[in-house]
Order: sequence, then C-alpha cells, then structure tokens
Amino acid sequence: MPTKPNTERFTLHPQLARDCHPLGQLGFCHLLLHRNATLPWFILVPETHLEDLLDLPAALRSKALDDAALVSRFIKEELDYPKVNFAAIGNLVPQMHLHVIGRCESDPCWPDPVWGHLKDSADWSPEQIASMKTRIQSLI
Amino acid sequence: MPTKPNTERFTLHPQLARDCHPLGQLGFCHLLLHRNATLPWFILVPETHLEDLLDLPAALRSKALDDAALVSRFIKEELDYPKVNFAAIGNLVPQMHLHVIGRCESDPCWPDPVWGHLKDSADWSPEQIASMKTRIQSLI
Repeated sequence: MPTKPNTERFTLHPQLARDCHPLGQLGFCHLLLHRNATLPWFILVPETHLEDLLDLPAALRSKALDDAALVSRFIKEELDYPKVNFAAIGNLVPQMHLHVIGRCESDPCWPDPVWGHLKDSADWSPEQIASMKTRIQSLI
Repeated sequence: MPTKPNTERFTLHPQLARDCHPLGQLGFCHLLLHRNATLPWFILVPETHLEDLLDLPAALRSKALDDAALVSRFIKEELDYPKVNFAAIGNLVPQMHLHVIGRCESDPCWPDPVWGHLKDSADWSPEQIASMKTRIQSLI
C-alpha cells in the first residue's frame, strides 16, 4: 500500500524540520520553505512511505507534480524568477521530498545546482515567512 | 504553443550530443545514456520549446514522467540499483532534459548528487551500449 493510512499521523523527517519553515498544505504535499534565504527554495513532502518520486503510482505522482507546478508558477509569476530547478534526490534524507527552487543568472551559485554549492546565509525574517505563506495560500 | 510542430526536425543540444549516447525513443522523450560509465545515468529529452519541466502542460508532463518512471524501473529491476535520483535542472543546457540516475551507497559520489561531484570516468563500451539499448527496448 503506497500511501500512509490516514489513521497514522504524518511525521516530518527531523532534518527537514530543522532545515525548513512549514508553510502549510498543498493538494497532496506539505509545503516547506528552506531556511537559506539566498533563493526561494521550496520543499514539498508528499505523505507516502515510498522514497523515490518515480515509484509513486501515476495518479499520486501527478498530484505531487501538480503541487510542484503551482509552486513553480508562484516562483516565476509572483517572485519574478526566470528559471526553476526541480529535483527528487533523497540520498541524505530518505523521506520523499521534492525541491522546487527559483534560480536566476545573478544568484550566488549560478549555474551550479544548489546542493553542495550554496553557502549558508541569513534566514528569512518572520515577516517574510508570513508574507510568503499568505501569498502562496492565495494561489491554492 | 508548447510543443514543437511535427514538421520541424528535432535537434539535440550539442552539449547533450557530446555528453551522451543516443539509445532511442520512448513514448514522448528521446533517451540518452551519459558517457560517464560510473553510474547508470540516463537523460530524457522531450520534444518541446519549453525549458522547465514544471511549465509543461499537465498532459505532456505526465507523458514525460511516464517515460522517466519506465527508465527508473529499468534501473531498479534490471540493473539492481536501490535508489534513483530524478532532476530537471538545465542551468547550463537550456533544452529541457530530465536526469534519471541509478544510485547506491557504494557508488563513487554517494551521497552527493552527481552534478559537480562525479569525476570523469571511462565511457561505456559499444557492447555495453548495444546491450543497454536491447534491454531497455524490451520494456517499451
């Protein structure tokens, strides 16, 4: 059975909880904002015991991708980033999670991918997080 | 118009042509095998003028993901890799292309992602490429 039964409570992997701010719930995924405020780096966590995106049954995979596409539109249309990187890696954190990251040629690790290349930076302020939450909720 | 008209001939980006061996055509994507033979690193190229996976209309996005899921099953079931990394980045090569990569804890850049971390290695032999082509065609 691919998805977690509704009777079980969803628990976020402690590494994701440490690295991110929770922004709420999309259609299928929990939405997180990575604390590194250099870039708009969102992480989507579907409720499933499976670890690899491409192992999800097609219907659930589509739901996860619908959520990712909504976040991508937010990054491009609301935050004005021209490019979005998308990845499901999970070599360090086994809980399935999808990266949706706004990129531009003037960002601090362009053209490298962020993983292993993006230096630590200041966190988002509480006001920035609250504003991000409100703006993204209005798209759902 | 999101997809390239059928009357136009598809041209692979020269960087992808240099880096990869062509393995054939899946349902929607051209299938390539990266020349770095350290890992089974497949690259799928959908025929579209769009650059970011999450900008594809949902129906085409599903077709691209179906192709990626087939390659992922091949990596896990036929090549015996326990883990698959999936990404659509395209910061260096703008033509839309999807990475589907077999990973395991004993591989040479585990747990880092391959981009910027995997050293050059020997290429696949012509026999290995022919065998890969035959085995993957049998799944289509």
